[in-house]
Amino acid sequence: MNTTLESKLKDAVWTAHSLFERGKTSGSSANMSFRHENQIYISASGSCFGTMKEEDFAAISLSGEPLSEKKPSKEWPLHLALYEKSPEVGAVIHTHSTYSVLWSFVPQIPELDCIPDHTPYLKMKLGTVGLIPYEKPGSEALFSAFRQRTGASDGFLLKNHGPVVPGKTILDAFYCLEELEESARIAWELYGVGLG
Amino acid sequence: MNTTLESKLKDAVWTAHSLFERGKTSGSSANMSFRHENQIYISASGSCFGTMKEEDFAAISLSGEPLSEKKPSKEWPLHLALYEKSPEVGAVIHTHSTYSVLWSFVPQIPELDCIPDHTPYLKMKLGTVGLIPYEKPGSEALFSAFRQRTGASDGFLLKNHGPVVPGKTILDAFYCLEELEESARIAWELYGVGLG
Amino acid sequence: MNTTLESKLKDAVWTAHSLFERGKTSGSSANMSFRHENQIYISASGSCFGTMKEEDFAAISLSGEPLSEKKPSKEWPLHLALYEKSPEVGAVIHTHSTYSVLWSFVPQIPELDCIPDHTPYLKMKLGTVGLIPYEKPGSEALFSAFRQRTGASDGFLLKNHGPVVPGKTILDAFYCLEELEESARIAWELYGVGLG
Amino acid sequence: MNTTLESKLKDAVWTAHSLFERGKTSGSSANMSFRHENQIYISASGSCFGTMKEEDFAAISLSGEPLSEKKPSKEWPLHLALYEKSPEVGAVIHTHSTYSVLWSFVPQIPELDCIPDHTPYLKMKLGTVGLIPYEKPGSEALFSAFRQRTGASDGFLLKNHGPVVPGKTILDAFYCLEELEESARIAWELYGVGLG
Repeated sequence: MNTTLESKLKDAVWTAHSLFERGKTSGSSANMSFRHENQIYISASGSCFGTMKEEDFAAISLSGEPLSEKKPSKEWPLHLALYEKSPEVGAVIHTHSTYSVLWSFVPQIPELDCIPDHTPYLKMKLGTVGLIPYEKPGSEALFSAFRQRTGASDGFLLKNHGPVVPGKTILDAFYCLEELEESARIAWELYGVGLG
Repeated sequence: MNTTLESKLKDAVWTAHSLFERGKTSGSSANMSFRHENQIYISASGSCFGTMKEEDFAAISLSGEPLSEKKPSKEWPLHLALYEKSPEVGAVIHTHSTYSVLWSFVPQIPELDCIPDHTPYLKMKLGTVGLIPYEKPGSEALFSAFRQRTGASDGFLLKNHGPVVPGKTILDAFYCLEELEESARIAWELYGVGLG
Repeated sequence: MNTTLESKLKDAVWTAHSLFERGKTSGSSANMSFRHENQIYISASGSCFGTMKEEDFAAISLSGEPLSEKKPSKEWPLHLALYEKSPEVGAVIHTHSTYSVLWSFVPQIPELDCIPDHTPYLKMKLGTVGLIPYEKPGSEALFSAFRQRTGASDGFLLKNHGPVVPGKTILDAFYCLEELEESARIAWELYGVGLG
Repeated sequence: MNTTLESKLKDAVWTAHSLFERGKTSGSSANMSFRHENQIYISASGSCFGTMKEEDFAAISLSGEPLSEKKPSKEWPLHLALYEKSPEVGAVIHTHSTYSVLWSFVPQIPELDCIPDHTPYLKMKLGTVGLIPYEKPGSEALFSAFRQRTGASDGFLLKNHGPVVPGKTILDAFYCLEELEESARIAWELYGVGLG
């Protein structure tokens, strides 16, 4: 864990570009963060994963105070809720990935483990994925609903909104997010033809 | 809004390439424009978002007179109709994005707000999307049908043709277009499995 | 039409890479050609659009004699059949694009104009698309079936195989192919939900 | 077959990046190997096709002994089982490609030749594809089930998991994998609308 800030920023920028270019997020809707020496570096408000640069990260404290001039993503409380959960959490990624969003519309999926394990990888890599009831993006109601459930699952899917995934490192969170989105896609496609 | 022409051209070329490379438009069918010092810079007739270069933009006046040798996209009246609507409109993008086009075929979608808000982002980012009845691309009938409806909605979907989206800046129009296409995709996919 | 060989090779390589990277063809299955001073330059046998380089083109005469050491794609007779049709044909592209292939499986599509014009662009850009009955790829039976029908339509769809599209230039053929594949995709998706 | 190690590593890295960037695999789930002078070079445990570099390959002997410090992918026994099958096998690729995985869920597909030949290319390029019953990834049970069936088909699809494909060279295995995934996609889409 003695990775330098420079190295983490490089991984964060690569991850943002890769998610954007491969259609796992679009527009300016995603955000990501990582921990470095008791500070959280989080993508700035309004930033776009497609044009992300190292200077597009704002620094905040673990209690949410701003530590740089950049304005952090308004969804920073979702990120802090996961860093608070465990010192092992070193990064968090939140996107509006299409298949995860689509799957969140399927009726009666289990709240504590909402992605079916048609394939074994999501459980092996990330664990369970909790479904967070819909609340307005950026609202205190959403942050509160999220905080109440962070202890109950390993990753999270905000209903009608998108996944929030922690990882030990940025790349670890990235791999978990990829597995979540791929698993949601498998689930969605099987559901569509009556095999799910 | 003191952005230089050079900076705007750079954003425009990046946006064109990004939309093309990520499958949000294809071939030579899209066009885009931006405002700079009372001139409109619009992609030239026959240009392709995949090969777009800074020199591929034609200049026209706000009443449509050519101000450069390049021939503007034949759809320039769609663009001017939005610049006329408000001085806040700084850019316009028109594409044939697949899911927006597909959604325009769904029967009985509301004319003044045709994209359902399954997720909240399109409304938060752009607002309502008006459906423009089908008329031949490039025809006066289309331009006229469009002009009649520009005041009634924030963004637009030309039936069997594609979205037309304004923004304060090129990147703002890009984010709005991305949200429109993603929202149309969510709507289309949910409709396909009977959840929409 | 005084374009240099160097310029045509550059367009050809760009087109191959672009089709491959955006998922319009995959593996080593596509081929393309262009006319230059009474010679046809065609992608070499076994070449891949993803790794295409300028030296990957073989030269043949208009009657099919080899004019270089490189072995031409075994589908060269499909290409020559279109150059013979008109001196205006300056390039030909053949791919296994997914949605065109899928559409060719739909029962009872019209043989002389097999892609429905849900949107107007394919007709405006390319014209009609003839459906060629299935014969083994690379077989004389396929070449013969193709030659019998080249006069009857503007572009072609080999059943269970893929599109063959002519153009005045490489980029013109590329735009036509893009429009064909996008139109086939629209047709396929509408068919899938019962709107086609 | 006098290709240098350097040249093979270059092809391997290109192939990994290309599969990742075009959505044929995601996250850190794929692995690949090639033979060079009685050694097998295999992607390291935990490596990602998107960030693959030449130094991310571990060397092992044909009986599985480590010959370098890097830890090989835990799925190395799948690879060795194919190298043992024939000295003509020069490379093996294993991915979790979406449509191949989806197709493996379809009931009652034939075990020795599980991908329908709606189009002729998979048979022409690779041959038959055997379906391997589900066992936990990385488990001895999976390796054993795989070894029992390597003689009976040309390529393989691990149920609920993904394809394993051999080739004479890295690019040959890549073309075969592309054809398998595309054939599975055609099969899946046709099945979805009742034409498969």
